[in-house]
Amino acid sequence: MLEWLGAADPGRVHTEGRMARAALEEARGAVAALLGTRPRQVVFTSGATESINAATFGALREEARGSGSAAVVASAVEHSAVRESSARWASRVLETGADDSGVISVDEVAEALRSAPDVGMVHCQLANHEVGAMQPVAEVAELCRAAGVLLHVDAAAAAGHVPIDFDHSGADLMSVSAHKMGGPAGIGALLVRRGLRIPPFILGGAQERARRGGLENVAAAVGFGTVAAQLAAPADLAAEASRAANQIERIRSGLAAVAGITFYGPASSAGRLPHLVCVGVDGVEAEPVLIGLDRAGVAAHSGSSCSSETLEPSPVLQAMGVDAERSLRLSVGWSTLDDEVELAVSAFPSVVDGLRRLRDG
Amino acid sequence: MLEWLGAADPGRVHTEGRMARAALEEARGAVAALLGTRPRQVVFTSGATESINAATFGALREEARGSGSAAVVASAVEHSAVRESSARWASRVLETGADDSGVISVDEVAEALRSAPDVGMVHCQLANHEVGAMQPVAEVAELCRAAGVLLHVDAAAAAGHVPIDFDHSGADLMSVSAHKMGGPAGIGALLVRRGLRIPPFILGGAQERARRGGLENVAAAVGFGTVAAQLAAPADLAAEASRAANQIERIRSGLAAVAGITFYGPASSAGRLPHLVCVGVDGVEAEPVLIGLDRAGVAAHSGSSCSSETLEPSPVLQAMGVDAERSLRLSVGWSTLDDEVELAVSAFPSVVDGLRRLRDG
Repeated sequence: MLEWLGAADPGRVHTEGRMARAALEEARGAVAALLGTRPRQVVFTSGATESINAATFGALREEARGSGSAAVVASAVEHSAVRESSARWASRVLETGADDSGVISVDEVAEALRSAPDVGMVHCQLANHEVGAMQPVAEVAELCRAAGVLLHVDAAAAAGHVPIDFDHSGADLMSVSAHKMGGPAGIGALLVRRGLRIPPFILGGAQERARRGGLENVAAAVGFGTVAAQLAAPADLAAEASRAANQIERIRSGLAAVAGITFYGPASSAGRLPHLVCVGVDGVEAEPVLIGLDRAGVAAHSGSSCSSETLEPSPVLQAMGVDAERSLRLSVGWSTLDDEVELAVSAFPSVVDGLRRLRDG
Repeated sequence: MLEWLGAADPGRVHTEGRMARAALEEARGAVAALLGTRPRQVVFTSGATESINAATFGALREEARGSGSAAVVASAVEHSAVRESSARWASRVLETGADDSGVISVDEVAEALRSAPDVGMVHCQLANHEVGAMQPVAEVAELCRAAGVLLHVDAAAAAGHVPIDFDHSGADLMSVSAHKMGGPAGIGALLVRRGLRIPPFILGGAQERARRGGLENVAAAVGFGTVAAQLAAPADLAAEASRAANQIERIRSGLAAVAGITFYGPASSAGRLPHLVCVGVDGVEAEPVLIGLDRAGVAAHSGSSCSSETLEPSPVLQAMGVDAERSLRLSVGWSTLDDEVELAVSAFPSVVDGLRRLRDG
């Protein structure tokens, strides 16, 4: 990635431009291989948030050309980018629910498609970004196929952590981010199903096969491609997921020893992402716990990964019926050491105990 | 910039997050200082193309809340991001012309504002991206102020090369890109006048004071801030512009010795950007010239900086009445050496002569 920070414009015919083009296309190939699709289905964006906005706008704009404005089906546990872009671009949003572990209701999606003839698009995240719940994408895809409705899958939380086979997923559009899998910030991708044409969200150039205007970020794409290549072999992805799952299991078992602890999300490890855990702590707010952990050298966070920490309760946890003021999230990445996990496990009880003693005077 | 490639999420309360926040805000301060505004008027984006789309969408969406859809005034020499986003979001586009050196017609802007009561926004680039013509922004701003219409200034080609004082420019919105001034790809800014509220273009998070969703690209912002800081002192910007102007003058004088050469853009150096020259070559196409220069080690290009080289004639040169198939652009940057300029000057005549001999059999 470093050698491409000063990359030439890959749209140019000169040697430097053609070298940048080759690096960009190699990165595209690696991302495509990780996600089970062809390179030309991969549109590089500035990140999953842009991808989601582009998917929602593009799909609904395309729908609108035919039959007027279209409605969208999206669950209450989708990322704010999905919910807000749907509210902006859809004629209306049919919000479906989730169970108390954060798994969306397929029945409610089916009911929405049955009751509303004007649905043009369904959103279904691959896994929840806060509690890690794997979602029933295959079932939702089957419903969408039967109804002739476009399906967008927000895979930002899941990509790089679980296997993805876009071409056989039933999804028409899929959004991913590099930084969520250990790659650089500022780059993501929108996967567009073969044969689907949607108008670009960012206009002003023929880049990305006229699907996203603006100079390509070659260095970031190379970083994205590098992390994708490291995870592209099924055995490598499985090994990374297993390492993450073991660290999270250690955190869960360590934290479970503290009184008044609740883990949110599916109870079975097969039903959730391997690399994160969302935990509620009875009787103390999230922020002082985060600050206490930070003093002990542990970086944890609360709320969604895309909003400031203390603004408002998490809509995901609200949809699950959980008191969002008292939850926080611990996640591990490719660079997380077992010693760091032990540090978190040993720091957590004393931080919580200290806060509870303060509260009880 | 390198030390921030693995930056934490600046929205987090933990130490790493707060350090990333501090770096991001320091970069914002440097960009604001270069462009003559306050840090809080600076919204970081993925580049000028996104900024322009965000400005056009935001301004027209805001206008539309009041009085229904609004028309836009934009000249034919604006960047494709301006023209295409205006065509998408405006009720109609009133296209104004330019003279044969690429300078837009203030009279036509005045006439458009006089004749159309539904104009909500005017675009006026600070300088043209292909021929370097400095535009009469102050006069256009005065017209916009009198008409009560928002003004967006695309300063992507000019920022870092000429002084900019956003707060006193009369512009409501301004778009810039880091890579056009020697910074990294993947980062730009939208400047928003104090007191102006426009809806975000990319939704899904409260980042950038709720004006642009998505994880902040801290490393790229730091790179942007670094180049901005190096140019922020008026003397430093003047020195850089002077060096660039001298190199371009050397190129112009060297190329002028070749028969059948035309320079496009304003004749006076005060009327154009210092760091680029657009040149037409009688009787040969641009692409073989570019390839010949490339073989000699000179990276030149044709057309707009935001589209593939050979797709279509430049709308800028068409608006000026120039045969776009036969023009190419040479630009210099902060890292361009005088020896490289001499290489270009010495290679150009033989490349053109060779192509003309081929043509003449």
